[in-house]
Amino acid sequence: MPVSLATSRRTRRSFYTARVEALGVSAYTVYNHMLLPVCFRSLEEDYRHLVSHVQLWDVGGERQVELRGTDAARLAQLMTPRDLSSAAIGQCLYAPLVDAGGFMVNDPVVLRLAADRFWLSIADSDVLLWAKGLAYGLGLDLAVSEPDICPLAVQGPKADDVMAAVFGDAVRAIRFFRFETLRFRGHPLIVARSGWSKQGGFETYADDPAVGLELWDALWEAGQPFGIGPGCPNLIERIEGALLSYGNDILHGDNPFECGLDRFCHLDRPIAFMARAALETAAAQGITRRIRGLRIGGPATPPAAEPWPVHGQGRRVGEVRSAVWSPRLATNIAIAMIGRDFWPAGSRVEVETPGGARPAIVADLPFV
Amino acid sequence: MPVSLATSRRTRRSFYTARVEALGVSAYTVYNHMLLPVCFRSLEEDYRHLVSHVQLWDVGGERQVELRGTDAARLAQLMTPRDLSSAAIGQCLYAPLVDAGGFMVNDPVVLRLAADRFWLSIADSDVLLWAKGLAYGLGLDLAVSEPDICPLAVQGPKADDVMAAVFGDAVRAIRFFRFETLRFRGHPLIVARSGWSKQGGFETYADDPAVGLELWDALWEAGQPFGIGPGCPNLIERIEGALLSYGNDILHGDNPFECGLDRFCHLDRPIAFMARAALETAAAQGITRRIRGLRIGGPATPPAAEPWPVHGQGRRVGEVRSAVWSPRLATNIAIAMIGRDFWPAGSRVEVETPGGARPAIVADLPFV
Repeated sequence: MPVSLATSRRTRRSFYTARVEALGVSAYTVYNHMLLPVCFRSLEEDYRHLVSHVQLWDVGGERQVELRGTDAARLAQLMTPRDLSSAAIGQCLYAPLVDAGGFMVNDPVVLRLAADRFWLSIADSDVLLWAKGLAYGLGLDLAVSEPDICPLAVQGPKADDVMAAVFGDAVRAIRFFRFETLRFRGHPLIVARSGWSKQGGFETYADDPAVGLELWDALWEAGQPFGIGPGCPNLIERIEGALLSYGNDILHGDNPFECGLDRFCHLDRPIAFMARAALETAAAQGITRRIRGLRIGGPATPPAAEPWPVHGQGRRVGEVRSAVWSPRLATNIAIAMIGRDFWPAGSRVEVETPGGARPAIVADLPFV
Repeated sequence: MPVSLATSRRTRRSFYTARVEALGVSAYTVYNHMLLPVCFRSLEEDYRHLVSHVQLWDVGGERQVELRGTDAARLAQLMTPRDLSSAAIGQCLYAPLVDAGGFMVNDPVVLRLAADRFWLSIADSDVLLWAKGLAYGLGLDLAVSEPDICPLAVQGPKADDVMAAVFGDAVRAIRFFRFETLRFRGHPLIVARSGWSKQGGFETYADDPAVGLELWDALWEAGQPFGIGPGCPNLIERIEGALLSYGNDILHGDNPFECGLDRFCHLDRPIAFMARAALETAAAQGITRRIRGLRIGGPATPPAAEPWPVHGQGRRVGEVRSAVWSPRLATNIAIAMIGRDFWPAGSRVEVETPGGARPAIVADLPFV
């Protein structure tokens, strides 16, 4: 349910906020202390457009935490159980950040810019302070900063065509989760094949407000023949595709196994990360709950704005963390943390929604 | 200008959110990943009520970062240039947190609960991650956590009467920036004479949702004879009183001298804090800009939702960080960062507001 947001300098504007306002953004969230659009026309209209055409997304709230210097690679590795030792320059890597207790801190995409330079393209927590605290405490030799970079995403099945119209056909050759430095009107610009949807597309990393606006306008113009529209990470599309959201689906009290991120935990490799002891213990003990999908019966519910308790055989067995009506599946779908007795697909549970109890069935993720 | 906020679990609800919704909250901000009310009727109506009567404030977004253990006092001191060595148990201390570069990280009120236990009642940045990073890196022996405590504030000239009706007259004896553990229906509850207004009052620290709701209801009931109403930190009152807001007025790129926090920087005392070298250098070099007040001419402007450039003699000399119309002073007032050539009170400058350039005069803080 949207409520009113009073903006101030603390809810920072991106390079593109004036553009998304002119295009009729209808709701924001606050993400890394910035305004992040979450809806233009309606969740469902935005969704249908995204999966059919192409959208321009102001994702300036995806801040970059830069690690630069002699110990940059060492600190990046300390922060994640994912093996970064073979990360190539030009590679993007999804990497859970895990603290010494084994708990999730964030789940950025790591961009390796150089042997001694990384960007962590972060979800909503102050990784800047986390990395700075670690660097100071460990006496590491690097600079940690948040350069003012506002990513701009082009997402949807026609993203390649729009990008090629602005950057040339070279952009089509960029592989998934790789980036290249291209030129836009003489200005070097990092362009990655990535983005927070399953529809394909790119993220560009403008580091200058004027260049960012020029880029927005150029992509907008180039996108007209392809039906480009304003968009943003879409709640329906991202739950269908099981793109997990830190702070919604993944909480600081979770470990990465509970979040289904086992494949990014390289306990068997000779790498130094601060969560090693905690994750080895957690792996040995096994987990008792896990992120799962739910299909919730009955008519459309509003999106979940707070945890919805999940019951099984009369006792509490978990909670819904995100939920939305899926027009494609014609049911409510949810991402939930579910106890082991009920996590097998097909288990029958009951969800306490704000509108009353509803039957639900545990499902594998992603939904589609 | 209010826009629409889409809520989700990531914009966490406090113990009291259902109550403030029932009482007609008209706008929120997001503060420490939580919903924080910022307006009920209008900024001006809320203001007039606050300075005349008494209000109940859901300030659950003021999260507590707890430092507990052998090295708790050592870490707390490392994080701030304010001397905490003589902090008494039961004392609240406003303490800028400053990093090794001399830059502001947050400006919490520190509550000393025991020799080895502190709460940092924080402004809007993830001090939890900052403190955890430092503790891990330095190998300190303590636990850093964010207990689920939702402060509830009673603010306004009649706050003592309302609190006494619930807690007894003992509450009247609590001194400014001191706290005591009182009993509320058998439940121990920390009660401090503090709060983010200049109107006087208390903050209570409920650590249980059910107790919190009972407390809200008891205070609401007790407040009826005193004209209690729902309220929240008020933009007009806090700018008039120069209560600085981290993220608005104080930025991570500022040092504490620029923010006028010199009196909390105890460089002359034999205490160990991480910013010492940086602040000694900054103190020796002197500052070239400083937070100042501005009276901005012309009719009422909307509150500043982004930095407004300040010009003096044709060149840029600073920026407005917060601004609002003050009904009491019958002028627009602002908190601004101003270069040294123009910081003397009475200096004439020009402010670029969204509605056009306006003349302004530099003023001392607070305004009233």
